Amino acid sequence: MAKQYFSPRNLKFLLHEVLQAGELTQYEHYKEHDRQSFDMVLDAAKQIGDNILQPFFVEMDKKEPDLEEGKVAVHTAVKDYLKAMGESGMIGASFSFETGGQQLPHTIESALTFMLAAANNAPTMYTGLTTGAARLIASFGSKTLQEKYLPKMLDGSWQGTMCLTEPQAGSSLSDISTTAVPTDGGYHKLKGQKIFISAGDHDQCDNFVHLVLARIEGAPSGTKGISLFVVPKFRQEEKMVENDVLSAGIYHKMGQKATPAMHLTFGDRDECHGWLVGEENKGLKYMFQMMNEARLGVGLLGAAIASAAYYASLEYALERPQGRKINGKEQKDTPQTTIIAHADIRRMLLFQKSVVEGSLALLLECAKYADLEKVTEGDEKEKYILLLDLLTPIAKTFPSEYGIKSVSEGMQVLGGYGYCSDFPLEQMYRDIRITSIYEGTTGIQSMDLLGRKVTMQGGKALMVLAQEIQETVSEAMTFEDLKKYAELLQKEMGRFQQVTQHLVGFAMKGALERFLADANLFMEFSSLVVVSWQWLKQAVVAKRALVTGNPQGEDLQFYESKIHTMRYFFSYELPKVKGLATTLLDDSEVTIEKSTEVLV
Amino acid sequence: MAKQYFSPRNLKFLLHEVLQAGELTQYEHYKEHDRQSFDMVLDAAKQIGDNILQPFFVEMDKKEPDLEEGKVAVHTAVKDYLKAMGESGMIGASFSFETGGQQLPHTIESALTFMLAAANNAPTMYTGLTTGAARLIASFGSKTLQEKYLPKMLDGSWQGTMCLTEPQAGSSLSDISTTAVPTDGGYHKLKGQKIFISAGDHDQCDNFVHLVLARIEGAPSGTKGISLFVVPKFRQEEKMVENDVLSAGIYHKMGQKATPAMHLTFGDRDECHGWLVGEENKGLKYMFQMMNEARLGVGLLGAAIASAAYYASLEYALERPQGRKINGKEQKDTPQTTIIAHADIRRMLLFQKSVVEGSLALLLECAKYADLEKVTEGDEKEKYILLLDLLTPIAKTFPSEYGIKSVSEGMQVLGGYGYCSDFPLEQMYRDIRITSIYEGTTGIQSMDLLGRKVTMQGGKALMVLAQEIQETVSEAMTFEDLKKYAELLQKEMGRFQQVTQHLVGFAMKGALERFLADANLFMEFSSLVVVSWQWLKQAVVAKRALVTGNPQGEDLQFYESKIHTMRYFFSYELPKVKGLATTLLDDSEVTIEKSTEVLV
Repeated sequence: MAKQYFSPRNLKFLLHEVLQAGELTQYEHYKEHDRQSFDMVLDAAKQIGDNILQPFFVEMDKKEPDLEEGKVAVHTAVKDYLKAMGESGMIGASFSFETGGQQLPHTIESALTFMLAAANNAPTMYTGLTTGAARLIASFGSKTLQEKYLPKMLDGSWQGTMCLTEPQAGSSLSDISTTAVPTDGGYHKLKGQKIFISAGDHDQCDNFVHLVLARIEGAPSGTKGISLFVVPKFRQEEKMVENDVLSAGIYHKMGQKATPAMHLTFGDRDECHGWLVGEENKGLKYMFQMMNEARLGVGLLGAAIASAAYYASLEYALERPQGRKINGKEQKDTPQTTIIAHADIRRMLLFQKSVVEGSLALLLECAKYADLEKVTEGDEKEKYILLLDLLTPIAKTFPSEYGIKSVSEGMQVLGGYGYCSDFPLEQMYRDIRITSIYEGTTGIQSMDLLGRKVTMQGGKALMVLAQEIQETVSEAMTFEDLKKYAELLQKEMGRFQQVTQHLVGFAMKGALERFLADANLFMEFSSLVVVSWQWLKQAVVAKRALVTGNPQGEDLQFYESKIHTMRYFFSYELPKVKGLATTLLDDSEVTIEKSTEVLV
Repeated sequence: MAKQYFSPRNLKFLLHEVLQAGELTQYEHYKEHDRQSFDMVLDAAKQIGDNILQPFFVEMDKKEPDLEEGKVAVHTAVKDYLKAMGESGMIGASFSFETGGQQLPHTIESALTFMLAAANNAPTMYTGLTTGAARLIASFGSKTLQEKYLPKMLDGSWQGTMCLTEPQAGSSLSDISTTAVPTDGGYHKLKGQKIFISAGDHDQCDNFVHLVLARIEGAPSGTKGISLFVVPKFRQEEKMVENDVLSAGIYHKMGQKATPAMHLTFGDRDECHGWLVGEENKGLKYMFQMMNEARLGVGLLGAAIASAAYYASLEYALERPQGRKINGKEQKDTPQTTIIAHADIRRMLLFQKSVVEGSLALLLECAKYADLEKVTEGDEKEKYILLLDLLTPIAKTFPSEYGIKSVSEGMQVLGGYGYCSDFPLEQMYRDIRITSIYEGTTGIQSMDLLGRKVTMQGGKALMVLAQEIQETVSEAMTFEDLKKYAELLQKEMGRFQQVTQHLVGFAMKGALERFLADANLFMEFSSLVVVSWQWLKQAVVAKRALVTGNPQGEDLQFYESKIHTMRYFFSYELPKVKGLATTLLDDSEVTIEKSTEVLV
């Protein structure tokens, strides 16, 4: 029996009691599904997690792949996993029936992604990347490309990848220099280098389908001259032939070692064929659709690793005897207590729990917005688009940044043992650290949030979010026990608006560098407010269940725990906004004034 | 030439301009020294750092030692290092001349420890442990024990260790169960197990001198029945014979891999001889002297790793081109800027710098208190004892906890590269994580601070500290530019006193669990106030130098950078106390009320 890595009860609560995911099946697009079909796919994912993923969590980390004679040998369980995911239809879970998918809501897809990654995070990168690459082809590729690539990708035999980053450009995509030269054979010839390509080469699939950003000869400079290409490792001619994509190097990462990060070269022999996806020079626009999804995927990854870490430290705290409760009496002759009795241990566990469940609530909420955006029209659709756009950088960053902290506290619960490989915490600590870097660092997410999302359409997204939060506040006000927290959130929303206006003031004066200088702190402020909202929302549902449902036993305990954890978050985490607001309203400008010399 | 891992200019500033370390030589105990002899030993340490330590930083991590056929093979550079440290007299740097030392101030010893650990932290554990063990023998051991062990330990040929932790007891030392049975041969027979013994076995020394806590048969239970023993691995009879100390296991740690952490068994064959140090049942008292020193040593370790990480990320930020300055103009055709131009990168670098230099300032201040405590008498001596007692848990914890965060920000500066082994950040990130666990976790330090140090002698230590801080505030008030910061610190000191009184109120009512429940947050609050004080103190010295010394070039830049970094700390870090105060004054009690079920 697998050790616990997530809470099925909590997932059920979020999906069905908070988000009412079943309601989605009333829309045409999802009408083939019902709650039972949702539960079936979630059960199937848990089976894969329990039987194929979790058992290899440690082993995959220990056997770090290397590049040897041009080949990258990864753990053979990767193939079993890809096969199981393909056979169960999970790689294309949310794809339309006509592109070979199951047409499931993103809400359900996100729940299963979370479960799988909590079981063993690194291998889920393989399928996540294939899904992302396939979705680009399904959304923007020609019928021919779709027919050629989608079936093999969705059944798990061909690996998809995303090739954006180049050595000289890093996050600055306007500077990419991979070139594409048109030919009269219906393809382009590509030439260039890409780095940090996750799952970019390995020996557990039959082919690779690289989605590559490149610049067509003569295209405009900057972001408006970038096109997107499908570049397979082996291309189909009379037989499959090598397509001049080579592994030039492999990165040795601190964590997520089971997923090789490759340095790839395209067109070394001038024999690399790529097929344009959609129109010329629209590559970045297409890629951004995928990146938005990928950002939520990284958020899920963070929440998932934090979840596995939470249950590992909880288990330890429940079993490990050490020390005695503090009560001022002479205690040396009394037996030791388990460490879960100590307030500081409980503080760390509550922090972990509040981060895991707060993150997951936000991520599933975002997934539901994505579903509703797809099936609604007009003002309603616009509302969901705005909310999703605004919340995506937060839903990527909070589970990453606070997830990293929460796994660190999880390690601390175990003390010296947590630092050693006898327990899984040290691996989780290494694994989760990448989440604040993947798919745009926290710095970049923060600039996106403040620089684009907050200001778009005159701040409309923020207004819509404020309404959503106000709705939760009003509901909470109807319960005497929750009133205090509702008022607190309302007050901090006011502080948040004050800070936002202060910062946007700089943008309006054209002081753009000053406007964005503290975007990172603004992100933390926003995250704390948004996750507090998610906690209050959960507390309202739990309170209502307690008041109206007369729950017993484990159910009673579950709902009480929800309210308790909300109280933790409001007492220990939300107050951090006070310090953040002080800094954000401060006029020190220490990070933008002066020369570089002040740093040396 | 070695890459920079610390700032010699900053060390000079702290030692000579802020702390006036030269003044110590006016005391009898240090009269053989002068500034020149101080500088000589620091130069010698830098040579060891540059030539013997830093070149093996990566290699030692990669070749993690294992326990094979009872033997632990570590990197051969360890022997070169031990030899160099022994020959230069640095293992016994602060020991008295009569015990074979150099009688140097702790202030200088701390500076050299910092430098060495910044060059390559893991191997410095070997010498740090030998110094600690030898100091116990020098302080409390008989003349015979001293003569038998000190020369070999101080010359680096015998390895000292500290054997406290046992599998069933962890941090709860009152529960240790290793036994010692008296014999009529002048020794005791020991039996028991010890875990996490750093440098507890390896092949680069001739013998081991374990300092072991054990319970003499019939001793009182609890902490008052613990005695301290010297237990060599090989004991001298006619020839050296095995003393029944065996390596039962080795821990595989996430970082500091060059230092093996051993599981040792004593007396498996009932043939383990141990020699009592000092008196029976006073072992824990003796050990605490060493542990106070060891806590400052861990603080130095944290500050040192954070220092090396700071210079590694600074170097990267100065060289790596990416993106453009934000100024609202169309920028695609301008060349990329180096990333140090970006405000968010500067924020992260300033954070790192403020943590490194703030930590080091505090640690050297503590070391000077230790020196002054040794050479003064009466009220003056008591003042230094109080300050050192109060500040030790803070000086251990801030460089660890904030050091961990600062190395994480250092990794973030490098983005994806920081997560890979091509750069040293990922190793530093793994290495430094142990510092909040070594020598008492942050939770334990925090209980020590609030539960013992704040309340001792009716809060006298806190009053003495408040006077010291007030003195710095008054000095800062005399400079127009610093007034704002002086007032801010004064205000936050007021808030700190309010919070302290609130918490101590619970202790006075006998509500001890409640009193200590948030000790961890109280620790962070205290640390931020204390390190702000250290920054203001540095700013006063820098400002005075600017006003009176008319410095030019690099000196001018150095002093301006000091004031700039102080401003960063006051704007970005000190405001965090607002949120902490809110939580500390809150009455939620979420970590002590309710049953365990709310966590599950």
